[in-house]
Amino acid sequence: MRIHHDGSELYVSTPHPALGETVAVFVRVPAGTRATRIHLRWLSDGEPVFTSAVVDRTDRAGDVWWRAEMPVRNPVTPYRFLIRTTQGVRWLTGAGLTHHDVPDATDFRLVAHPAPPAWARDAVVYQIFPDRFARSAAAPAGDVSWDTPATSGPYATRVRYGGDLDGIAGKLDHIAALGADTLYLTPFFPAPSNHRYDASSFDRVDPALGGDEALARLAGAVHERGWRLLGDLTTNHTGAAHPWFASERDFYYVKPGGGYECWMGHPSLPKLNWGSAELRERFRAVTQRWLREPYGLDGWRIDVANMTGRRGADDWTHQVATLLRKAVSEARPNGLLIAEHAHDATADLDRDGWHGTMNYAGFTRPIWSWLRADNLPFDDFLGVPVEVPHRDAAATVAAMTAFAAQTSWRSWTTSWQMLGSHDTARIRTVVGDAARHELAAGLLLTLPGTPMIFAGDEIGLTGATNESARQPMPWGRPWDAATFDRYRALIALRRSSAALRKGGLRWAYAIGDCLVFLRESAEQTVLVMARRRAGEPLTVTGLPGGTRWENLYGGGKPLYTEPDGSTAIDGYGPAFQVWAADR
Amino acid sequence: MRIHHDGSELYVSTPHPALGETVAVFVRVPAGTRATRIHLRWLSDGEPVFTSAVVDRTDRAGDVWWRAEMPVRNPVTPYRFLIRTTQGVRWLTGAGLTHHDVPDATDFRLVAHPAPPAWARDAVVYQIFPDRFARSAAAPAGDVSWDTPATSGPYATRVRYGGDLDGIAGKLDHIAALGADTLYLTPFFPAPSNHRYDASSFDRVDPALGGDEALARLAGAVHERGWRLLGDLTTNHTGAAHPWFASERDFYYVKPGGGYECWMGHPSLPKLNWGSAELRERFRAVTQRWLREPYGLDGWRIDVANMTGRRGADDWTHQVATLLRKAVSEARPNGLLIAEHAHDATADLDRDGWHGTMNYAGFTRPIWSWLRADNLPFDDFLGVPVEVPHRDAAATVAAMTAFAAQTSWRSWTTSWQMLGSHDTARIRTVVGDAARHELAAGLLLTLPGTPMIFAGDEIGLTGATNESARQPMPWGRPWDAATFDRYRALIALRRSSAALRKGGLRWAYAIGDCLVFLRESAEQTVLVMARRRAGEPLTVTGLPGGTRWENLYGGGKPLYTEPDGSTAIDGYGPAFQVWAADR
Repeated sequence: MRIHHDGSELYVSTPHPALGETVAVFVRVPAGTRATRIHLRWLSDGEPVFTSAVVDRTDRAGDVWWRAEMPVRNPVTPYRFLIRTTQGVRWLTGAGLTHHDVPDATDFRLVAHPAPPAWARDAVVYQIFPDRFARSAAAPAGDVSWDTPATSGPYATRVRYGGDLDGIAGKLDHIAALGADTLYLTPFFPAPSNHRYDASSFDRVDPALGGDEALARLAGAVHERGWRLLGDLTTNHTGAAHPWFASERDFYYVKPGGGYECWMGHPSLPKLNWGSAELRERFRAVTQRWLREPYGLDGWRIDVANMTGRRGADDWTHQVATLLRKAVSEARPNGLLIAEHAHDATADLDRDGWHGTMNYAGFTRPIWSWLRADNLPFDDFLGVPVEVPHRDAAATVAAMTAFAAQTSWRSWTTSWQMLGSHDTARIRTVVGDAARHELAAGLLLTLPGTPMIFAGDEIGLTGATNESARQPMPWGRPWDAATFDRYRALIALRRSSAALRKGGLRWAYAIGDCLVFLRESAEQTVLVMARRRAGEPLTVTGLPGGTRWENLYGGGKPLYTEPDGSTAIDGYGPAFQVWAADR
Repeated sequence: MRIHHDGSELYVSTPHPALGETVAVFVRVPAGTRATRIHLRWLSDGEPVFTSAVVDRTDRAGDVWWRAEMPVRNPVTPYRFLIRTTQGVRWLTGAGLTHHDVPDATDFRLVAHPAPPAWARDAVVYQIFPDRFARSAAAPAGDVSWDTPATSGPYATRVRYGGDLDGIAGKLDHIAALGADTLYLTPFFPAPSNHRYDASSFDRVDPALGGDEALARLAGAVHERGWRLLGDLTTNHTGAAHPWFASERDFYYVKPGGGYECWMGHPSLPKLNWGSAELRERFRAVTQRWLREPYGLDGWRIDVANMTGRRGADDWTHQVATLLRKAVSEARPNGLLIAEHAHDATADLDRDGWHGTMNYAGFTRPIWSWLRADNLPFDDFLGVPVEVPHRDAAATVAAMTAFAAQTSWRSWTTSWQMLGSHDTARIRTVVGDAARHELAAGLLLTLPGTPMIFAGDEIGLTGATNESARQPMPWGRPWDAATFDRYRALIALRRSSAALRKGGLRWAYAIGDCLVFLRESAEQTVLVMARRRAGEPLTVTGLPGGTRWENLYGGGKPLYTEPDGSTAIDGYGPAFQVWAADR
């Protein structure tokens, strides 16, 4: 183990400080490593300030904890540590220990903006594509029968299966059995397509989904279970059928000589111009309306947040994010605001706007490229024009760390970790079989961040493209019950484990086919091992010495670490195991 | 050599594009390395767009040049390359080749904001601390005689030596002999201290320096030689004696109950509140006044730019930078605006504000830590509370690359590379002797970026603290003429070499005691070798094969590279050598 700090409660006294508060931060120097002096460096009004850390305590494992304090003067306070070791002077930032100077971009960060809702960190999000989840008895007929396999192709976004909101309300027991507690619905506004990202109104729920009353009924049923319900708002564009597009030309980018700016060149999706004060006002009203009773949504996922407000010399993105965040907070103080961002959201987080992002870049891609099957029926890496690369455990951790290092701990852990979504191939198709699917689900539910599960992943649905992955849920037909049981057990494990919900993260091993890490909170220490194929036994070092580890998941035997902190793990695989240290 | 791209003219068709232009960018795949496919990825309105690169040509050395085009749609366009090699898929960003995904922070960048003045890139800047450079016959008496050694201590900033602007004008032949062509004066406004960063006025030149007329005379003499003259403006604070502090309380942060915000807790330096529209107007006027005739300054260095406008929840820094940039451009279309920033300016560059920074982070610290003497008479690393670390060549290049990778090529090359300044120890004291001093000067004048020389460095002045380093120039006394000759030769070399002034940068070797790199332009290929101590002979590979290299500096023999691109260099040292490829 290396010298460590992260933004979790073991290392930061006050994760959500207010301006003017003083925060203590801790550095952990593992037994067997020596630090002769540690300074904390933070930025205060743009200037580095240094203070000496002092030894706070030595824990039972022999790790030495150093402590330093800083005042919170600015909304975001980047900080890092300067460490004199017996090998020389090192910086400790979110990128780890470096033996040379590094820019501030990977500094740890304290954020004094109002905190994300506390429930979000512990949520397990279940994503529903309303046309494909379930039909109520009253649902109008679909274009095809429910059992027709979804396919890709030119008409794929037009075919309606006829799922509706009352259909969802009728299947909450399935979600309860799984253990998720937050429903995220892709858009429910009227629109020509079945995905409804081409809204023709933000003022009413699509009558084909049951209309406003059905949303109120679904929200009531969800809230009755103590769950949350999230909507999906498209802020980058509307559908061309939206009445604004006829009446409010200032809301769009109309080009001199005719024509207009649109999303990715699709004329059906005219792009919104957030320079318009009136547009901002309208969106404030829309955002708030559905958060209020009788709907009471608990927040929004914002579609194409990375492009929203950006066009040519215009860049209104942060103003939009701040406006929406304020609108949400006013209407629903505990509301959540999550930004879609497929490539790198880090520059848009920690700014009093989005609470978090859909973490394709720092989670989905690394997991896909570590667990991908030998042969894949598609050749696109979530929008990058290559087949999913084969990457080893070291590259996987390097990628996750690279993105996490440019985000505050709180934005990272409030972001959604996903194995896929309605916009991607199915994880089952990516990994190829149920055994690796278990590893993927295991990592989803044990790494930091809010797990988001696209409905159907938990029963092993497949699909090589986003459109063919949007299969209707096969109610009443056989599905992969073993995978369902694994998801259920992993979700239950996460719920029962303080360390998995809020613990820090220390990587213990990341080479080739094996990933091993610790999640640690004040209450609990959890050890997770993922091995993508069978191989040689593995020796992990640097764990708490002389400890007995009880198996929590995976059916493995208890584990014992030697007094020197090493342990051997057999080479079986694919395998996913979780243990907790006996206290 | 590795697959390469940088922002220089070999790799970018249009370094200063306007919005709407199309720019071609090139990737160089060295002979012996194979790329099977290359994509260019750029961000367009916040979304990644990919296009295929095509092979443009194979050069005489066998390097294959790939070409791709992108439209410039946004003021800043981050871009990178996706490269399929025989080893797998790689990203190429400013951080080099990576085998895992990385955030956008190190993407290359095209910047469509108005370009920095062309003269700035080729300038050699000579920094003058007016109280210590030279006295004219008319200068009022100083507090001490000119030959008194400057020291540190509580009164160090009070002792006046009595240098004046006419004194500077009388010594321009020295600067001409050296070869510098841009004078940067630390503040010339009236102030209680000898450094004058505690201005009591921005409306007149300190009478002790000769007043407004002396500045006009100096500017005239400088411009007559075809040189440039830069001033130094303090925008973060004024002196407490400034009349604004008595009459314009809105310009400052007055605390409820009395007291006021000040720089680093010094009551003599009240901090300015850039929330004041009137303050902005006053500074616009000040900025422009001295750029106009009869003074005609060619630009400003902005003091404490990193803190300017930042205080608590306020962050006006970018607005200030944009305002000053606009003011400079209006008054002096070819004017330059350089920001002091001691730790990491990268987030403040490329934003239509500062043209560049004083690059302590990405140049001074790496050079100091590679070339430092075994024993140092001080224990501070430019504000970092450790002795200057001992770092090897790999760490030196890693640090330089880490900062350069987060900056556009143009902001990097318009930034000032320095071995020290009036705020630091003297480079001669840091490196300990004339031989290593030559290496430091050699790197200063052969790496990309604008060299800035603190007056006296070129004659070997010493000093372990900023105050004791501000020695009066020892006119008429003996000085290190050999070091002066080296600076002169290196400056002349830079002036004569297109590759050194505007070429790209490829590192060829960076291990332990040796740094080797290529600077390449359309006209010329230059090879630079710096070795900090004698050692084993060195074999450098990947150079243009079968080439004869003529020695340009250092007195070395011609060099020949084998057909396979390797060459051996003897282990003499310390050594600094420059060769150019015969064409």
